[in-house]
Amino acid sequence: MTLRHFIDTNDFTKHELVDIIDLSISLKNCIKSGYNPPLMKGKTLGMIFQQSSTRTRVSFETAMEQLGGHALYLGPGMIQLGGHETIEDTGRVLSQLIDIVMARVIEHSTVVELAKASSIPVINAMSDYNHPTQEIGDMITIVENLPKGKSLEDLKVVFVGDGTQVCASLGFITTKLGMNFVHFGPEGFQLRKVHKEIMEANCQESGGSWLVTDDEEEALSGADFLYTDVWYGLYESELSEEERHRIFMPKYQISRRMMQKANLGAKLLHCLPATRGEEVTDEVIDSEISVVFQQAGNRLTAMRGLLVYFTLYQQDTTTLQ
Amino acid sequence: MTLRHFIDTNDFTKHELVDIIDLSISLKNCIKSGYNPPLMKGKTLGMIFQQSSTRTRVSFETAMEQLGGHALYLGPGMIQLGGHETIEDTGRVLSQLIDIVMARVIEHSTVVELAKASSIPVINAMSDYNHPTQEIGDMITIVENLPKGKSLEDLKVVFVGDGTQVCASLGFITTKLGMNFVHFGPEGFQLRKVHKEIMEANCQESGGSWLVTDDEEEALSGADFLYTDVWYGLYESELSEEERHRIFMPKYQISRRMMQKANLGAKLLHCLPATRGEEVTDEVIDSEISVVFQQAGNRLTAMRGLLVYFTLYQQDTTTLQ
Amino acid sequence: MTLRHFIDTNDFTKHELVDIIDLSISLKNCIKSGYNPPLMKGKTLGMIFQQSSTRTRVSFETAMEQLGGHALYLGPGMIQLGGHETIEDTGRVLSQLIDIVMARVIEHSTVVELAKASSIPVINAMSDYNHPTQEIGDMITIVENLPKGKSLEDLKVVFVGDGTQVCASLGFITTKLGMNFVHFGPEGFQLRKVHKEIMEANCQESGGSWLVTDDEEEALSGADFLYTDVWYGLYESELSEEERHRIFMPKYQISRRMMQKANLGAKLLHCLPATRGEEVTDEVIDSEISVVFQQAGNRLTAMRGLLVYFTLYQQDTTTLQ
Repeated sequence: MTLRHFIDTNDFTKHELVDIIDLSISLKNCIKSGYNPPLMKGKTLGMIFQQSSTRTRVSFETAMEQLGGHALYLGPGMIQLGGHETIEDTGRVLSQLIDIVMARVIEHSTVVELAKASSIPVINAMSDYNHPTQEIGDMITIVENLPKGKSLEDLKVVFVGDGTQVCASLGFITTKLGMNFVHFGPEGFQLRKVHKEIMEANCQESGGSWLVTDDEEEALSGADFLYTDVWYGLYESELSEEERHRIFMPKYQISRRMMQKANLGAKLLHCLPATRGEEVTDEVIDSEISVVFQQAGNRLTAMRGLLVYFTLYQQDTTTLQ
Repeated sequence: MTLRHFIDTNDFTKHELVDIIDLSISLKNCIKSGYNPPLMKGKTLGMIFQQSSTRTRVSFETAMEQLGGHALYLGPGMIQLGGHETIEDTGRVLSQLIDIVMARVIEHSTVVELAKASSIPVINAMSDYNHPTQEIGDMITIVENLPKGKSLEDLKVVFVGDGTQVCASLGFITTKLGMNFVHFGPEGFQLRKVHKEIMEANCQESGGSWLVTDDEEEALSGADFLYTDVWYGLYESELSEEERHRIFMPKYQISRRMMQKANLGAKLLHCLPATRGEEVTDEVIDSEISVVFQQAGNRLTAMRGLLVYFTLYQQDTTTLQ
Repeated sequence: MTLRHFIDTNDFTKHELVDIIDLSISLKNCIKSGYNPPLMKGKTLGMIFQQSSTRTRVSFETAMEQLGGHALYLGPGMIQLGGHETIEDTGRVLSQLIDIVMARVIEHSTVVELAKASSIPVINAMSDYNHPTQEIGDMITIVENLPKGKSLEDLKVVFVGDGTQVCASLGFITTKLGMNFVHFGPEGFQLRKVHKEIMEANCQESGGSWLVTDDEEEALSGADFLYTDVWYGLYESELSEEERHRIFMPKYQISRRMMQKANLGAKLLHCLPATRGEEVTDEVIDSEISVVFQQAGNRLTAMRGLLVYFTLYQQDTTTLQ
């Protein structure tokens, strides 16, 4: 069995990511039809949170329990990564005691270091750089809401607003899967060179496309999905309400007006939590075109798939090689 | 299946409450005789605590595990209700990820709002208004200690001291079940008009009685159970030790002297934690007439019944209708 | 069934401690070979932490889950021991709701009081006086690394550095089992009279030996295991980096030079977390002679054995009496 970590979807081939998505959907169908396969029986997931989180925590913990295993919560203050003990030593110790670990970290390098020292799989549950478990849940939601007659490669997915790690992640997975990605955001808050180089490399391989722009018409025309996130600028450099309104309002607020510039039937995605009245209006997020709560439910769908893939599934395929 | 929440026992008929109590007792007998029915298998309970709690937390979590399910702890700081995200959005998200939720809240309106937005059952695990899960555990303890030859309707239950939410709750459930309730407390700390109107309506229907008084003889004469709670005046307006002694001491302290004014064999109830030497003397709480630790154990009895009732039991009865 | 608590290994006979160690090793083999015996099925462990902890928390929680039970985390701030409620009342309440409890406490008297009030087994998961669960894991690690041709009684085990509760605990268990124990530490930081009296009594019974010294040659000559711990002087009287370097450096740092004064093949033990570059060099802790991560893994081995011993195993032997 080859040990692999889930730190960045760019470490995986399109084929592998599609495998994870398919596995997630199969497990969802299985559980929906009344059978909870005990694939994680006797296994313990360690959940390290340097910041608290509702969706990620609840979906990982529920996923483990539904699959017959157990999730162990190590929240802020309950465990240190790089305090009295080095991150490497913590990784080695956890590798002796549990079966798989997820970490929501402040700095991306923390989860990278943890993975390097661990002899059990490590899942990146969001860093300041990316949010790969969200990517899987998002793709599942897009698959479940595929416009009639279109395949993934036909889709145009537009992220509106601040170039957060969720925006970067959406750019990564869509270009990897051969889709057409746009970041529609104001200068100074757009995806940067490092992101563009990765998206370009992905598109070279997959045939997808990417665009970063502040031109509304170009961004929205033909869009199948609009996606947004809060404007806080998370972590140390959090923006005040005044600043973020000055920067993003009204041009980057997803409103009825903006949705009407996209394709008929275009859907709204949001990683949540939402600041209603800022990045999205109540009218849109509460409308029929909003699939954000289904998307939140697919965090659970993704976690189940990822847990099984990284503890069991790979093992099987590698023994066949 | 009709979705119902457990926010207030006054939303239920006497018959329904007796059903919950009976179900709780049946499950207790079942587990005591060695069989843990896996009725919550594959199900996850979310436990939201805006304030920490020992008894409620431990009894809910143990109940879920004994019934084959899992409880997920969302303590203070781990989840916000009404911070970055609206309470409604949190309710909708949790409804996608878990099966049932309990919330210990500071303001009653929080749990009401959460229930309104949720498509899974919401259980009020104490607010500043009432404490309905405690009510069920208390009634079970009273049933288990029924004086010889008496039925519930014959009992006189006296709450002594500050008119807390536990006092109000005891007034609600006893009058609903046709019992005779007294709040014996000082003016300014007695149950208010809003409580009296509910108790009156309950008694009209059930044939029970209620009384709010500071007259010791009237209050205690013929009492079968004395119940008390701390004098802190929980939450924002916490009383100092000096103030509470001035207000409640010695008249409202449950001592040997006070117990002797009640019926022979009268029992002591207390929701705990107790401030020994304030609302109750060591002598009384540690005596044979104290059933407070049995009552604490019946928090677990009640939680099992409530969990099964709100996720499974109702489903069956409604399909028969 | 006789109720027993695990507060201090000195409350147990050598035979009983060997029984716990053997049981732990049997369960480890059983689980390693693929069968998780569901010995804790339907049982809940309460884990009270007055201070946070990685290894103890993770190993207890994983142990319960592997044995089919559940562990309930009551971290700092989630439960009080001796705040609004007396420790005795908390013990009595928990005895009604769960099956076994462990407590990591600041003052040893807290866990002693908790045990006195509890009608369920209480396990001391470290106090300012001792660390008995660590003792069991350490002995298992020593058994797994027994030098060729030697038995436990032939071994010389040297604790180097500050006379912490881990040092005292190592002195207790080694002398109880008839081994040869040395504390090699500077004056003012050596084990005290209270420890020496216990070790002397243990040796009288077991035939072991003990020595407390600051003489390096005497301490290290013939040593089979070197063990160390941080130099912080945990809790209220924490030493600054400057002070601890002045006191312990370089004489008490476990380096290549020091290891070479011990027996060929001598091994390094450390309870972790380690302050690399202080009490032990990177070179030694990362070398082949370091068994510290195996030792960390044996925290889990010990917890499984202790949980089964104190909830089930004794029951069987006492019914035979």
